[in-house]
Amino acid sequence: MKKIGLVLSGCGVFDGAEIHESVICMMEILRQGASYECFAPNQPQHHVINHLNGEEMPENRNVMVEAARIARGEVTDLAEADAAGLDALILPGGFGAAKNLSDFAFKGSDCQVSRELTALVKAMHEAGKPVGFVCIAPVMIPKILGPGVSLTIGSDQETAAAITAMGGEHKACSVSEFVVDEAHKIVSTPAYMLAGNILEAESGIKKLVQEVLRLSA
Amino acid sequence: MKKIGLVLSGCGVFDGAEIHESVICMMEILRQGASYECFAPNQPQHHVINHLNGEEMPENRNVMVEAARIARGEVTDLAEADAAGLDALILPGGFGAAKNLSDFAFKGSDCQVSRELTALVKAMHEAGKPVGFVCIAPVMIPKILGPGVSLTIGSDQETAAAITAMGGEHKACSVSEFVVDEAHKIVSTPAYMLAGNILEAESGIKKLVQEVLRLSA
Repeated sequence: MKKIGLVLSGCGVFDGAEIHESVICMMEILRQGASYECFAPNQPQHHVINHLNGEEMPENRNVMVEAARIARGEVTDLAEADAAGLDALILPGGFGAAKNLSDFAFKGSDCQVSRELTALVKAMHEAGKPVGFVCIAPVMIPKILGPGVSLTIGSDQETAAAITAMGGEHKACSVSEFVVDEAHKIVSTPAYMLAGNILEAESGIKKLVQEVLRLSA
Repeated sequence: MKKIGLVLSGCGVFDGAEIHESVICMMEILRQGASYECFAPNQPQHHVINHLNGEEMPENRNVMVEAARIARGEVTDLAEADAAGLDALILPGGFGAAKNLSDFAFKGSDCQVSRELTALVKAMHEAGKPVGFVCIAPVMIPKILGPGVSLTIGSDQETAAAITAMGGEHKACSVSEFVVDEAHKIVSTPAYMLAGNILEAESGIKKLVQEVLRLSA
């Protein structure tokens, strides 16, 4: 059975991993006959957002500890992830990808991506294994793999411009579809960058998981 | 379009609403042609559990604010829920049902159920509208509706004995099935009381949502 690494960036759309996208990834990976292992960085969250009113809260939370809520306790430190033990990698979205795994939410095209994540994605890439990026997570691709990789975050012009500025080849994409860069084995889908509800998010993520598994053959 | 109230009890299996069950309820409600509105009590969580190691954390969190993580910000105070505007009600599980909506986790058959939830479920019942309870949430049924209601929490003997002591009619049930009390329009399914993975949880919840919608016709 193929094993997919699922990289979570907290627990909640505004400061962590988008919960619906993460859960849909888990379901689709199992439904399509593979297994998953959750990973998250053992580091403080950039901040904590009150998801009712959008305001910052005077709290400190740890990304891995909060990700364990989505993973029902079963999450491994991202620093311990080994590309050799994984057939593919998938990153759900949520602002955690742009606040905890990178600082894209604050620095745009001048962002930096976590060293641990960069090392893991590069190792997967060098081993010829596919990586799927959901929602806002694809903004990290140019900083990790360099220029020339095709990807999508849907149709948001400001975000697409930042991707272009970093050397990415942004392609507009609807919520129910995905973009694949066959040469780099990189798959991306807009999910909640465009989705109006959870079933719309599911429609594209289901195809992304399918494509990632196809490329891992 | 039918509207289902979804009562969340926080965000995370060990101190709040079980995330997978909550997300599956959302997906199945939409997939089966209905809509949902999320509710949660505006009250402190009983406590905060580190989901990595199971230990209590020296923090205070609010049930409604945390539930908003699952609901992507769209959650209404349970105190404002009006049975007249809902066709049915569904309660996902997680320890939040036994720690925040009731104190069953600490007091067993001597537990009390939140006054707001009791009033809402009673109002639904008096209006002839169905209510679905997932996972551990069914333990609240005898305290809300009195003795004689058929329900399931799966097959855990200690929990079943506590339900019997409160006057509930416990029926053993597999993870992919549900128990319905037609006369009371109460539906229950074990989900993570028995599920070994998220697809097993989905198998029973899908049928529970279907049955709740059938009873709301």
